[in-house]
Amino acid sequence: MDISKKKSRPKAITPKGFRDNFHSYLKKREKVLQKVNRVYELYGFERLETPAVETVDALGKFLPDINRPNEGVFAWQDENESWLALRYDLTAPLARAFSQHRNTLHVPFKRYSFGPVWRNEKPGPDRFREFYQFDADIVGTSSFMADAEMCFIVFDVLKELGFSTSDYSTRISNRKILSGLFQAVKLEDATILSDIELVVFRAIDKLDRLGLEGVKNLLAKGRTDSSGDFTEGANLSAFQIDTIISFLKITNDDPYKTLEEMRYLIGGSEIGQQGISELSNITDTLLSKDIDSVSFKIDPSVVRGLAYYTGTVFETELSTATRSLGSISGGGRYDDLVSRFTGQKVPSTGVSIGIDRLVSYLYESDGDNEKGVVDVLVTVMDKNLMKHYIKIATEMRENGINTDLYVGNPKDFGKQMKYADLRGAAFAIVAGTNEIEADIVQIKDLKLGSKLADNISTNEEWKEQPAQFPVKREALTKKILELLKR
Amino acid sequence: MDISKKKSRPKAITPKGFRDNFHSYLKKREKVLQKVNRVYELYGFERLETPAVETVDALGKFLPDINRPNEGVFAWQDENESWLALRYDLTAPLARAFSQHRNTLHVPFKRYSFGPVWRNEKPGPDRFREFYQFDADIVGTSSFMADAEMCFIVFDVLKELGFSTSDYSTRISNRKILSGLFQAVKLEDATILSDIELVVFRAIDKLDRLGLEGVKNLLAKGRTDSSGDFTEGANLSAFQIDTIISFLKITNDDPYKTLEEMRYLIGGSEIGQQGISELSNITDTLLSKDIDSVSFKIDPSVVRGLAYYTGTVFETELSTATRSLGSISGGGRYDDLVSRFTGQKVPSTGVSIGIDRLVSYLYESDGDNEKGVVDVLVTVMDKNLMKHYIKIATEMRENGINTDLYVGNPKDFGKQMKYADLRGAAFAIVAGTNEIEADIVQIKDLKLGSKLADNISTNEEWKEQPAQFPVKREALTKKILELLKR
Repeated sequence: MDISKKKSRPKAITPKGFRDNFHSYLKKREKVLQKVNRVYELYGFERLETPAVETVDALGKFLPDINRPNEGVFAWQDENESWLALRYDLTAPLARAFSQHRNTLHVPFKRYSFGPVWRNEKPGPDRFREFYQFDADIVGTSSFMADAEMCFIVFDVLKELGFSTSDYSTRISNRKILSGLFQAVKLEDATILSDIELVVFRAIDKLDRLGLEGVKNLLAKGRTDSSGDFTEGANLSAFQIDTIISFLKITNDDPYKTLEEMRYLIGGSEIGQQGISELSNITDTLLSKDIDSVSFKIDPSVVRGLAYYTGTVFETELSTATRSLGSISGGGRYDDLVSRFTGQKVPSTGVSIGIDRLVSYLYESDGDNEKGVVDVLVTVMDKNLMKHYIKIATEMRENGINTDLYVGNPKDFGKQMKYADLRGAAFAIVAGTNEIEADIVQIKDLKLGSKLADNISTNEEWKEQPAQFPVKREALTKKILELLKR
Repeated sequence: MDISKKKSRPKAITPKGFRDNFHSYLKKREKVLQKVNRVYELYGFERLETPAVETVDALGKFLPDINRPNEGVFAWQDENESWLALRYDLTAPLARAFSQHRNTLHVPFKRYSFGPVWRNEKPGPDRFREFYQFDADIVGTSSFMADAEMCFIVFDVLKELGFSTSDYSTRISNRKILSGLFQAVKLEDATILSDIELVVFRAIDKLDRLGLEGVKNLLAKGRTDSSGDFTEGANLSAFQIDTIISFLKITNDDPYKTLEEMRYLIGGSEIGQQGISELSNITDTLLSKDIDSVSFKIDPSVVRGLAYYTGTVFETELSTATRSLGSISGGGRYDDLVSRFTGQKVPSTGVSIGIDRLVSYLYESDGDNEKGVVDVLVTVMDKNLMKHYIKIATEMRENGINTDLYVGNPKDFGKQMKYADLRGAAFAIVAGTNEIEADIVQIKDLKLGSKLADNISTNEEWKEQPAQFPVKREALTKKILELLKR
């Protein structure tokens, strides 16, 4: 190694697909998290937090995009050569945690959890590798009421965040109905998806992106994308393709009519009829609520990407008058995920709300209306008076006033004022030797100051409401508290 | 591959050194985080959140235990073969983030941040690989006032958490004084630690664990630990060892006396005298506050393990009447960490509070005094009446009552009551066909019920305060709100 070679500097950059979040965004996120949290607790869910890191074994392979390296997760080997990974969602860790602690947990176990999850996917402009989810799950019940409750929760969360039912719709279906359809068109007959069923399943999952024609091609011989890449199709027969496409095209305002048309297409399949019956029960339950608090649609084309779903599946799209946010929530029933660990069937259901898109939307549409942290800047006129400045700052803080004591180089007073401005401080406290000796301090009203600076013709106003004025030292905190309330 | 072989089940277990956290612990943590957050904002810090994942380059190699695989971090290669890692603290990512966004940030930049950090260290009973830190940092000032503020913040946080100055003490020193000492005993003369200095430095850092005798051995020929393993020593001369040991032994109630004795031992070293002068300024500043709000000690043996510190270093130990928690906070000045990225010197200082130990302590000493999530359980007497139960639950929730609607198998009513108990519900709502027809519901007072069950002699009381009583359906929510206030 050539040690004379200068050590190169590291790049000051987040890894691709990761980002930093700043104060006012985080304050907005905090508010959203609190509201979601409140709704989840109103429904009687309790919190459980699992670690960021799990064994790869425990996480399982349920991500849709399994052809990429590391199968969509960030994984590494520990010192004993066993594989660890960052969680890709909050559901797989819950199944592990419930199995681990099942002897001390009540059933049904209603838990909520929130935090970042990580996916080793190709990042895009609005697609990050670290994102925030807020989940609610019920472990240990097969009741359709539990599935319905997941939908109610999303409705209530969106209401709490200020959206109305016209802004969103939850599309609901059931994986069992898809299995029924596969039986009806005589694809292979298995409860676990066969290879060919998996290809068909993935084709259907791409409906949003490719449209009906694209899906049709994938069900037939295959499809060439815009870059010229060819994806091999499922090579189904014309009858099979037509039936599946007819199934996907079913749409009605009346959910019971949709259920009827689905029932017709899946014919005598027992598992399919079971799915229809479950979906019918959920429909009844959702419709039993006030019409102005629900917005849903039975939609056969909803399948959800994650492989662990076994029954009910749903996702919610949000689209306001000004902007379409796409899918902001999804979930469903995963009756076999816990039994991977325990061998015993523990039917479960859950929902996940994607926090980032909601926060970004609210942040942009509300404007950056979070006030800055700092109420008051205590400036430094003379380093030798630091003791006095500390006393002032301490007194302010003891009275709940967010106070910044200037710790930069105090020589340039203009710089201190500029700093106060950048931090959004409402007031600056100024005290030099003269003031300290006279037992007073100067208060600079920074908001008024900048208003007056913009509007210097109003000399009268200046006199009546001066942007800087002295107060007795002992009256300072009380005065600031008054001014802040103004 | 033998496909007849049964697929083995994954183990339901967190990776070694990781753990799950449950509701009441998390509620307690939430309260602690809020209090710390409040203090940081009172001091005018604003939040910045960096991702969990950084490039290994950006994180740098500053962990003390650099002889272990992966140098103490969890790291892996991404698809382009470049190394990524989980952050091991919140300071290195801050240096990266400040450098990345420096054109849009004000200086001094006061930021706080909290969240998990990860260390690939040997886990122990009270030593986890994922732990929570809450940091405050000021980037872009060399003022001793900034260092002092870090100490004030810790004092205020501990006060806010209910500790008194007799429960803790902050030990403060300065890396420059140590450099001065190295010059005085004629170890190599460099601003960056030489190999031999590094060995001496690590020996001193082990004082807590090994005692003076152990450190002495490491400064001399070496030390054999209890397992028989030998660690090669620094092979210093008797004069060098004696001087260093004398330095480490300096202790006085009067910080100025300690400073004087340190000054004497480092002799004419310029960097050492600079360290003394900085430490003296901080001492003046800390002593300018009310004596009942500060608790610190100048202690030459504080060095801190992380390699990025350049000046002031401090750590706070908490030891209440009932238990010693050890170090719960530490920090110091790192004037070269940002310049790794930018090439320009950006002096900075910061403090980190370890949240887990504090929460565990408060959780254990307060007892588990967090109330359960659920106020009311709506039981299911008859599945066909589900619509009515949903309506009741909805009404409760709209009135801010945390309400669990039973979603398990409703057949065994005793099981529902047991579930209500496990969830800590105060009341259960019971309504069968008779009640619904009569437009009433039964309220079961579960706390009173269990009290009465414990004390069945008081029949009179039972009559006056029955554990179950009917109310008109329309009066239900109002009644429950009243009862919950009781």
